[in-house]
Amino acid sequence: MAGYQEILVEKAARIATITLNRPDRLNAWTPRMADEVRHATGQAGHDPDVRCIIVTGAGRGFCAGAEVQNLEITASRGKSRGEEVLHPDDIAFENAPGPDLTGLFPGRFGYLFDCPKPVIAAINGACAGIGLVFTLYCDFRFAAEDAKLTTAFAARGLIAEHGSAWLLPRLVGEQTALDLMLTSRKFLGAEAAALGLVNSAVPSERLMETAREAAAHLAVMSSPRSMAVMKRQIRAARLQDFGTALAVADAEMHESFGAADFREGVTSLVERRTPAFPDL
Amino acid sequence: MAGYQEILVEKAARIATITLNRPDRLNAWTPRMADEVRHATGQAGHDPDVRCIIVTGAGRGFCAGAEVQNLEITASRGKSRGEEVLHPDDIAFENAPGPDLTGLFPGRFGYLFDCPKPVIAAINGACAGIGLVFTLYCDFRFAAEDAKLTTAFAARGLIAEHGSAWLLPRLVGEQTALDLMLTSRKFLGAEAAALGLVNSAVPSERLMETAREAAAHLAVMSSPRSMAVMKRQIRAARLQDFGTALAVADAEMHESFGAADFREGVTSLVERRTPAFPDL
Amino acid sequence: MAGYQEILVEKAARIATITLNRPDRLNAWTPRMADEVRHATGQAGHDPDVRCIIVTGAGRGFCAGAEVQNLEITASRGKSRGEEVLHPDDIAFENAPGPDLTGLFPGRFGYLFDCPKPVIAAINGACAGIGLVFTLYCDFRFAAEDAKLTTAFAARGLIAEHGSAWLLPRLVGEQTALDLMLTSRKFLGAEAAALGLVNSAVPSERLMETAREAAAHLAVMSSPRSMAVMKRQIRAARLQDFGTALAVADAEMHESFGAADFREGVTSLVERRTPAFPDL
Repeated sequence: MAGYQEILVEKAARIATITLNRPDRLNAWTPRMADEVRHATGQAGHDPDVRCIIVTGAGRGFCAGAEVQNLEITASRGKSRGEEVLHPDDIAFENAPGPDLTGLFPGRFGYLFDCPKPVIAAINGACAGIGLVFTLYCDFRFAAEDAKLTTAFAARGLIAEHGSAWLLPRLVGEQTALDLMLTSRKFLGAEAAALGLVNSAVPSERLMETAREAAAHLAVMSSPRSMAVMKRQIRAARLQDFGTALAVADAEMHESFGAADFREGVTSLVERRTPAFPDL
Repeated sequence: MAGYQEILVEKAARIATITLNRPDRLNAWTPRMADEVRHATGQAGHDPDVRCIIVTGAGRGFCAGAEVQNLEITASRGKSRGEEVLHPDDIAFENAPGPDLTGLFPGRFGYLFDCPKPVIAAINGACAGIGLVFTLYCDFRFAAEDAKLTTAFAARGLIAEHGSAWLLPRLVGEQTALDLMLTSRKFLGAEAAALGLVNSAVPSERLMETAREAAAHLAVMSSPRSMAVMKRQIRAARLQDFGTALAVADAEMHESFGAADFREGVTSLVERRTPAFPDL
Repeated sequence: MAGYQEILVEKAARIATITLNRPDRLNAWTPRMADEVRHATGQAGHDPDVRCIIVTGAGRGFCAGAEVQNLEITASRGKSRGEEVLHPDDIAFENAPGPDLTGLFPGRFGYLFDCPKPVIAAINGACAGIGLVFTLYCDFRFAAEDAKLTTAFAARGLIAEHGSAWLLPRLVGEQTALDLMLTSRKFLGAEAAALGLVNSAVPSERLMETAREAAAHLAVMSSPRSMAVMKRQIRAARLQDFGTALAVADAEMHESFGAADFREGVTSLVERRTPAFPDL
């Protein structure tokens, strides 16, 4: 994709970092930004040299929600102007291992569940509305202790958008989901950690270091093949009865016995050394 | 309804407060009380001047479970005497916005999920058996730190009644649900907060103030329309696959774009003032 | 079963304790051990004098995962050698009360959900891979604060085995499930308690006392019949819509009204004495 306008992407040490980059607008979400993040995730997901993806925000905010200027247009027109897809690249991860999620998670963020690499949200500051919903589709969430989060919908006369009524109770339980949705109250990263909405909250200046350490661990210690399969197993299992999830697990287990990752996993254990897993 | 006998109802500042009122019996649950609470919730749910409902108990207890005299009768007869519906008023909230829950949550407390206003349980003291189950159908739970709670069923030779085997694991996770159900142990409000069974526990003398502050926030800061829709979205999503929940969300989102609440939500944000949402 | 080789079983005060007993191998899991634990659980489940089952490990570990020598064989052959069932005794709990789970939880550990007695895992030390998965099928988990736990799969190039992709998110939420699965990181019993993966973590020397106190409470204070029904209600409800779970609860409630346990539960309450529930 020729030149992103609203995000930055860098790659280092097998970690791709996507930075939402409209800092003067607290990285408010736009159709273009949605498209660019999706495209960059597709690139990183297919790049054999990338094992983990971090998404963060430039400047003081992570993503303050939908661009309010767009909301104003919508409010005055009484309908959404939609989100035009500028780059309808197919980012299907068709050859990735693991159960097929096709059709199970439609909508604009389902590609994050399908992506075979773990995605870490590093919530550096204000995170609201669609910005918060985006992070629910990530596999890990780390927050600055003083980042301000809010679902925002009830304060705007809106509703639980983009699947969040389904996702949030499964992440944090129904009690907290109702609290955060119905009150629309602002809460800090530190409380988000206490509520189980983020994996941990750290002082602002240590956030990126924390995210990168987690990413580096995943890039070295965890089999890329295992991560790809397990991400999909866990999401698929939400929609399966136990017997189906077990059958998937048994089939995947037997397939993994024949893969190079298993031989390397056992050998490195026996030889008491760091594993050197093959790229996906 | 002409005169409640076992509850009190008052309305102030757009908050309806229902008080279980058999204090000499720790507000033990009776068929009449069930009927009166249901009726009062119906009234408050339909009253445009009510935005939030609080349920609490008179005296030292919240609700010590089913009236033991009724249990004794049942135990001696070997069958339940049932709960006669004294006032079979239809409290259907047919015109409330949000996905239709008809048929999804049958049983005696399903009306609480259907009610378009948030319901807060203020657990001021002993809360056992059916009293505890009632609170699981509320949207928020606040407890006095020293309130004594217990599922009670295993200690009476009973089972997980009224849908609690389905609800409790979805609120607090399966581990805590098994603990509280199988042991029937008593635990304090403070532990209930740590277990994620109540939103927070506070010193007894601050309980009603805490509940009223939460209610007042909801009454002013959250769109009544948004709350009505989101309550139902979250409960309906428990029974939906992701794609269905997403389709509901997309339809509700587009509908909300045309509502006055959205215009007021955006306008009040831009004008940096407290929103003045229309009544439901 | 004539003489166990890899486990020990003792019975005292209506508690059966099963000890994994390959201490020189940190009780690494073998097909024989699997078979013996299953058989001993069947025996205890049918023994009217047993009300609760504790599973723990001999020596320093609980269960360090699949015996690595077996893994090496599998890795070199590229396929599993399977787990031969040495003693295919039928341990079906056909006459136990509660909803029928037949067919709902297939696989090697489904019998733990079907067992009418509560099963407590006392995690005394290293607990990895299939050892950790085993504990997810138990009803209670207590851990030594310094016990080391890990899912292990991603570090071996394996996947979320034996239904753990389905079970773990339902126990600890999706965020923690992804964390523990994708990172394969080691964590201590103390963190396991904070994550909600174990009911509590205690100093190592107090672990068995803690487990036995919990078991003794269940053996005396909870109706065996109630526990049998509620274990199955909670697991069945995972696969049911609300209406079905409610119908099961209503049917079980009415059946419990005719049982001796209910009469004893109410009578002991009225007489303010410890209940003396009949054996199952």
